[in-house]
This record gives sequence, C-alpha cells and structure tokens, in this order.
Amino acid sequence: MLAYFNHQFIEVEKVALPITDLSIQRGYGVFDFLRTVHLKPLFIDDYFNRFFNSAKSLQLNPPHDKAALKAIIFELINKNNVPDYGIKIILTGGCSTDGYTLNAAPNLIITQQQIQPISQAIFDSGVKVITQQHQRELPHIKSINYLMGVYLQQKIKEQQASEVLYYKDSIVTELSRANIFMVTYDNKIVTPSTNILHGITRKKVLKLANKNYTVEERELDIIEFENAAEVFMTSTTKRILPINQVDDIIIGEGKAGPITTLLFEQLIKLEKQTI
Amino acid sequence: MLAYFNHQFIEVEKVALPITDLSIQRGYGVFDFLRTVHLKPLFIDDYFNRFFNSAKSLQLNPPHDKAALKAIIFELINKNNVPDYGIKIILTGGCSTDGYTLNAAPNLIITQQQIQPISQAIFDSGVKVITQQHQRELPHIKSINYLMGVYLQQKIKEQQASEVLYYKDSIVTELSRANIFMVTYDNKIVTPSTNILHGITRKKVLKLANKNYTVEERELDIIEFENAAEVFMTSTTKRILPINQVDDIIIGEGKAGPITTLLFEQLIKLEKQTI
Repeated sequence: MLAYFNHQFIEVEKVALPITDLSIQRGYGVFDFLRTVHLKPLFIDDYFNRFFNSAKSLQLNPPHDKAALKAIIFELINKNNVPDYGIKIILTGGCSTDGYTLNAAPNLIITQQQIQPISQAIFDSGVKVITQQHQRELPHIKSINYLMGVYLQQKIKEQQASEVLYYKDSIVTELSRANIFMVTYDNKIVTPSTNILHGITRKKVLKLANKNYTVEERELDIIEFENAAEVFMTSTTKRILPINQVDDIIIGEGKAGPITTLLFEQLIKLEKQTI
Repeated sequence: MLAYFNHQFIEVEKVALPITDLSIQRGYGVFDFLRTVHLKPLFIDDYFNRFFNSAKSLQLNPPHDKAALKAIIFELINKNNVPDYGIKIILTGGCSTDGYTLNAAPNLIITQQQIQPISQAIFDSGVKVITQQHQRELPHIKSINYLMGVYLQQKIKEQQASEVLYYKDSIVTELSRANIFMVTYDNKIVTPSTNILHGITRKKVLKLANKNYTVEERELDIIEFENAAEVFMTSTTKRILPINQVDDIIIGEGKAGPITTLLFEQLIKLEKQTI
C-alpha cells in the first residue's frame, strides 16, 4: 500500500517522521479523514474545506492548494486500487529546532486505511456509550489531539461500551470521534451545534433530516436522554450508528429506532447519488 | 549528537518514528525534561518519579525500569560529552494498527538539547505574560499535548510577552510550560496546587521558601496580582524567572523583586550542593 509523503508516493511502511516534528514533540497537527466509494472520494469538497480551515486555524500552510491536493489523492487512489477505503490526510507542525517553536514547513502525510463496516446486527441492536465530563480543546479544529479519547479506551472497554460522550455541566457536546443526535417522541431531531467539531456526516444527516422533520440545533442536556425516543451518532466511518444506552439510561426501545433507520437509508441513497 | 532510540544509540538526525505511532496519529505520549550540570543529571530521581507516574497514568509501559533507564542516560551523557544540556525523554503511544487503539509497545526516545540561559538583564527586568482562559487536559500528567501552548505562540509574540498564564473562572493554574508563584507585601509565598503539573523546580522552590517564609498552596485569583509585591515563574529550563507584568497589570516595582532574587540564589546554591 502506497502513502504520499512530502512530494512522493512511497510504501507506507517506509514513511517515518523526524523526531523533531511537532506532532511527536507537542502533539501539534491537524488531519482529516474521508472515504472512497468504488474508488471515488465521497464528499471530498466538504472534507477539503474543513481540512484547509483546520490547517489555517493552527497556522499551518499546506504544501499544496486544493486542486493539487485533490489530484494527488486521485493518483493515490488509482495507484493503490482498493475500493471503499479510508483516506487520512495529516498535516503536522513540522520540524522544530527547539522542539516547541512553530518555525518550519508542515509535514504532509496521506495514507489509506481499511474501514471496519458496521454489521447489520450491531446496527439493529445499537451500542452503549458512557459519558465523561470533558470539553475538547479548540473543538472546531480537527487537531490530532485525542489525549482524552485514547486515555479513556480502557474505561470504555471495561464498561462494555463503544464510545464516550463528552459533556460539560450536564450539557452534551460530542463523542470522542462522532457527533450525537437525539430523536424526541414528537419526532424532533436534536443535535448540539456549539463547542463541537462539525462533522461532514452530521452536515449531510442534518440536510436529510430537515426535509421531513423539525430539526433543533441547540444545547442538549444529558437528562433529556431519559425521555428520548432514539439516539444515534454520526461519523465518517460509522455513517449513522444507533445508541441503545447512555450510561445506565436505556434509550427508547433499546434498539435501532425507525427514524434513525430511515435517515441511514437516505444517507446511503445520497452517497450513491453523489458518486 | 547521539540520541537513544529503542535500544540503541544513534545520531539524532537519523531517528524517525513510523507514522502509525500514536504521537503522530493522536498526539498521545508522555515526556519529561531534565538538565545536566557539569555532565551530571540534576534531581534525576524527582524527574524519574514523575516520568514513570505519567507513563503509568497513560497506560504506557516504559521498556526499562528506573535503574536501567538511569544507566542509559548516564551513558548518553558520557557519549555526547556536552556539559549543562537538557535531556528529553519521550515515551509515545507506540505503533497502532488502526491509528487509534493503544495496542503496541511504546516508543522511547531520549535526546539532548541545548538550553538557552536567561541573561542577567532579562532576569533583572523580568518578563511580561499574557493570560488565557484554559484548563490543560489531565494536568497532572506530563503528556505531549501542548496544542494550546503552540497555538498561542503567535499571540504571545504579538503582545510582546514571554509566556501565557492559564486561568479558569479567574482562578490561575499554571503557565504553558512553567508554574506560577506570587509574593505578597507581607512576604507570603502563594502558589496554586490543584489542576496543575507539579514542576520539579516548583517543588525545590517550595522547599526553600518554607525555610524562611509562610507558604500558601491555595487557589490564586487573577485579581490578586494587582496587589502582588512579586510574581515569578519556575521551570526546569528557566529555574526562576521574574514576571514584571500580567496582561496590563504591572507587578510591584515592575522588575525582579528581592524575595524572587533570594530564592533564585538559594536554588543555584542547592543545585551546587546536589551535584
């Protein structure tokens, strides 16, 4: 499998970063992650907009503009020739002479990686999530900082959960790698919109939901889950994944709900129309 | 200059990490930083205790125990033969098959780097710091996450400041890479003790201060700086550095104060006694 690293295509196993890079020294860098469907990158303009915005916010200049980066990604997809894979674009803080000062060109790494599909059984039953008081730093930027998420892996596993949902003072924001949605018993779709990373899948689901439902982008209190009909998460790799339990709260019927399922079907349809 | 990387001594320019390492993928890792004085590592047991605690907290198993790691560091110091240098020990999350799951042995990197000494003129005048509402994630762990600190570099420079002091709801915690101390007009030494990284220099200064002054480890409100006699920061590289201004507040006489200077002299003396 080839990767793209600083102006060349190279076997992924051979790509290594000098240890003076600020990702290693200070956890400083941005990334984005998109999927290919039948060798075509899905919603690439949305991902590119976010990636270039993240880079700019962290004062990192990508070595290529959008058009050139797109051409590189198409070339990588063609060279590797693996359908329905993930594409990860990392832009690090670059090599720093003193291990702290941002003073060099960023390093760009593009890799492809397999995506574990969600089985029908998992979708139907839904998954459990646990909660954690936490606010991601600079949440609107897709930085590589996942200190809390990786740190909590063991706890998530111990509690037989799939993900962790962050909240602050009882207000829910997002999961460690996904956005959160709630469906009320009067068929309203609720999702937080502040202090979060704005997911591309979240954006697509909101667009679909707006066609048939009342959508509320607003603060969501953790206590509202007690009276929720359905809850689900959205992410690039998971698309839409039903949540059947938040800590000790069983959501609705404790399985994938009808509106979640409908939105999932509509999302798959949208993907097919786009590609 | 040699580095130590996964069981061998190697030219530092040749050390590179596979991009699947969780430091690059997710900003996940711990480190510590100590100084040598005349080719001897200063307060190494204190630094080792903190490093091994940080590693344990992030579920990372160092490849060597304390005795073996100490022997490696002494060998590195002897091989490089540069007096009065810094020693950085980084332990990363290791290579992860999916770029997220913590499932491999950590990578250990030990490097030496030059320390820019604080000039007498800078010490005498003190430096300006700016403030920022922020709470470091998992503050007691010396993780590599400096997203906020690196992000704020440009702002610090623009404001002609040297460092940034974090606070939350008006309660001061620490600077991005140093601890904070205040001296009151009735000669009390005040420093925060919660939601911070416990600096080794902070510990030594507290011990020295306790001999001659009343020391208060307690919450410190940002407004108290308006009536502070002296303010200073402590860190491994800076030892003790007077602060003459916090945002728009001029501290005391706007220069290095007598108690700060006395503590600095006592710290230098302690270093000489230790080595």
